[in-house]
Amino acid sequence: MSTLALTGGRVLRPDLTVDRADVLVDQETGEIGAIGPDLGDDADTVLDATDALVTPGFVNGHCHVAMTLLRGYADDKPLDAWLSEDIWPAEAELTPEAIEAGAELGLLEMVRAGITGFADMYFEMDRVADAVDRAGVRARLGHGVISVGKDHEDAREDAETGLEFARAFDGAADGRVRTAFMPHSLTTVSEAIYEEFVPKARDAGVPIHLHANETNDEVTPIVEEHGVRPLEYARELGLLEPGDFLAHGVHVDETEISLLAETGAGVIHCPASNMKLASGMAPVQALLDAGVTVGLGTDGAASNNDLSLLDEARDAAMIGKLAADDAAAVAAADVVEMATAGSAEAIGLPAGRLETGAPADLAVIDLSGPHLTPHHDLVSHLAYAAAASDVRHTVCDGRVLMRDRDVRTLDADRVRERAAAEAAALVERAES
Amino acid sequence: MSTLALTGGRVLRPDLTVDRADVLVDQETGEIGAIGPDLGDDADTVLDATDALVTPGFVNGHCHVAMTLLRGYADDKPLDAWLSEDIWPAEAELTPEAIEAGAELGLLEMVRAGITGFADMYFEMDRVADAVDRAGVRARLGHGVISVGKDHEDAREDAETGLEFARAFDGAADGRVRTAFMPHSLTTVSEAIYEEFVPKARDAGVPIHLHANETNDEVTPIVEEHGVRPLEYARELGLLEPGDFLAHGVHVDETEISLLAETGAGVIHCPASNMKLASGMAPVQALLDAGVTVGLGTDGAASNNDLSLLDEARDAAMIGKLAADDAAAVAAADVVEMATAGSAEAIGLPAGRLETGAPADLAVIDLSGPHLTPHHDLVSHLAYAAAASDVRHTVCDGRVLMRDRDVRTLDADRVRERAAAEAAALVERAES
Repeated sequence: MSTLALTGGRVLRPDLTVDRADVLVDQETGEIGAIGPDLGDDADTVLDATDALVTPGFVNGHCHVAMTLLRGYADDKPLDAWLSEDIWPAEAELTPEAIEAGAELGLLEMVRAGITGFADMYFEMDRVADAVDRAGVRARLGHGVISVGKDHEDAREDAETGLEFARAFDGAADGRVRTAFMPHSLTTVSEAIYEEFVPKARDAGVPIHLHANETNDEVTPIVEEHGVRPLEYARELGLLEPGDFLAHGVHVDETEISLLAETGAGVIHCPASNMKLASGMAPVQALLDAGVTVGLGTDGAASNNDLSLLDEARDAAMIGKLAADDAAAVAAADVVEMATAGSAEAIGLPAGRLETGAPADLAVIDLSGPHLTPHHDLVSHLAYAAAASDVRHTVCDGRVLMRDRDVRTLDADRVRERAAAEAAALVERAES
Repeated sequence: MSTLALTGGRVLRPDLTVDRADVLVDQETGEIGAIGPDLGDDADTVLDATDALVTPGFVNGHCHVAMTLLRGYADDKPLDAWLSEDIWPAEAELTPEAIEAGAELGLLEMVRAGITGFADMYFEMDRVADAVDRAGVRARLGHGVISVGKDHEDAREDAETGLEFARAFDGAADGRVRTAFMPHSLTTVSEAIYEEFVPKARDAGVPIHLHANETNDEVTPIVEEHGVRPLEYARELGLLEPGDFLAHGVHVDETEISLLAETGAGVIHCPASNMKLASGMAPVQALLDAGVTVGLGTDGAASNNDLSLLDEARDAAMIGKLAADDAAAVAAADVVEMATAGSAEAIGLPAGRLETGAPADLAVIDLSGPHLTPHHDLVSHLAYAAAASDVRHTVCDGRVLMRDRDVRTLDADRVRERAAAEAAALVERAES
């Protein structure tokens, strides 16, 4: 049995208390074997956690990881114009190689940020799955199915691609890759596609992930056409089963919040994207009060513009208070929970809590920076003051992905160079 | 003549364009001698700016730097309860030594974040001025004058302390320290104090800085008592002269925005603090459209919880779009301008633009991180993706304050240890 010990640090427990403890990992099973004093003596590998906090690996509940290639390509525009004028024309020029390069860049960034799991909706997802396999994290992946601008047969073919990917890749990368059927949204996928493919996804045994209630412009046409709120319409389409999860949920009313609580479907809150695209403020405290499972997502790097759950946790606390008009709302512990166990539960990955027998997906946060001094409250520091650059080590499934800020599974220089070259070539194609 | 060259990088020009250039600094005058190609050959000191962007040093327009000791001490509470239940009782136990330790910690953090100038309102300000002198940055400092809870004679004495500090320390630290008269706010300082001391501050030739229009709870009583909006009341008190600047300006109406534009008084926007305390969303785009000078401030670390203008710039763009309900509002270039030239102009420090003859106050931002790849738009990266940890070197007044992330003017380990000890002792006193 090969073992890994994280020694000398403090540990964030599932109840979000912190105490001094070592963590011992069984690298064969990829699970946490023990948490307690003096566990480092006989371990095969030891990671130093002195002056640091061992936390669950962060889980990014909604991403389009290959979009790192478009980071900073077009900013400061409303969602519709941004998509139609900038993002979609650029995406039309994306090659499988570019998507793989972008995914590797995003994965490199996420491993450095202590992220050990994420959900991703994009296309050429076999390339993303390959990158996930190499990077060593967990993922819930799906092909983004879209009908707009396509005739029904083309739309069916796209949905078949999504279903086929979900079937073929579920359990890939030694089980670290799970899949979902991912229709883009309620307004960009036709009712006929939902009617045919939701049952097929259920038969395939994969959950469904979609964007929902992101902007008012998306809510209004559904209410006008169907006479019900979007999530009621979603329910009529057979969505919102347990295991399903939606991104955004900005414009949800009380009925829809109750529906989410009743069905057990999860919500991935994407505060940075919602602010940057002026989509609005999700009622996160109301969602939490209703008992909805809420996770955090970065969305793509083009609307964020980074992939850090620590940034997202801070943003969630900040905007959550504004939305509730209450500084006590969406507190530090809430956003730390959302960034770890909340996201993991919402997207259905076995992670988010440090306890014996749980998967060894964890991050070690260096507490020695002046910006993390003094140490009145380490949960507050995670929520409000820690940054991706404070992550010292990242471990997933018992494997060391980053040690002393050196990512071991990806070659950082090569990944950066390749992504920069692909991004430059992409812009040249898109603008020519 | 001793010279410093920053070589191999790109330079952010005053019009926010970026081009490849070296920067040559005359260390005798502390000014930029030249910006152009190949300036490193004969320099006495060379700082490597390869794969990096040379920017103006960031200017933190509103801070209470010693409050780093209370970082994470009390979070997730509304302004009034947070002040009365947590912050004021703790502040009552602050010793001059604790304030100096907190100031050093905050200065260490700010130098690491590329901040070369700031405005600060607190007490025991001679200790803060000493720390500023050692750290090597510029500052606009003032004693926070307060009347509530005091009889008129005690309030007068406090105001005299503020005036005396402003007179005595203006021009300290070889001219890097400037001062202001700093009444805490319109509701916490009596009209009698304003009537007596505003003319005295004018005689002393120092500007006036105060908190204003931060929360609705602060606006309402002024409207009720005086029948005018707070900034009209401020004008009646003789405030809002050119050079004066106010912090927050969250709840300002159109009349007040016009008043700010007409008088030339500056506004320091503190987006993180305004979100964390649920104070509200300042109408930043409207302020910019009216031609008001707008800078950015972190406020104290207890309501932020860090001291990074890069975080603040991102926050300002994010909340500015929500406030305007427009993703095009408060764009990347706007927040970069606010974090540099905007703040410098508002608080009256000679900084914020890289050009020949300007003070050599600058930061060098490493662009090699995966989160800053690719390089479509470096101004976007400054606004949305760069972090304090990306700052490689910091220079102020021609002097190297940080080189390769090693702060030269302060002993980081000693500063952290001293601050942690003072913070622990402070909490023990406050809670005993």
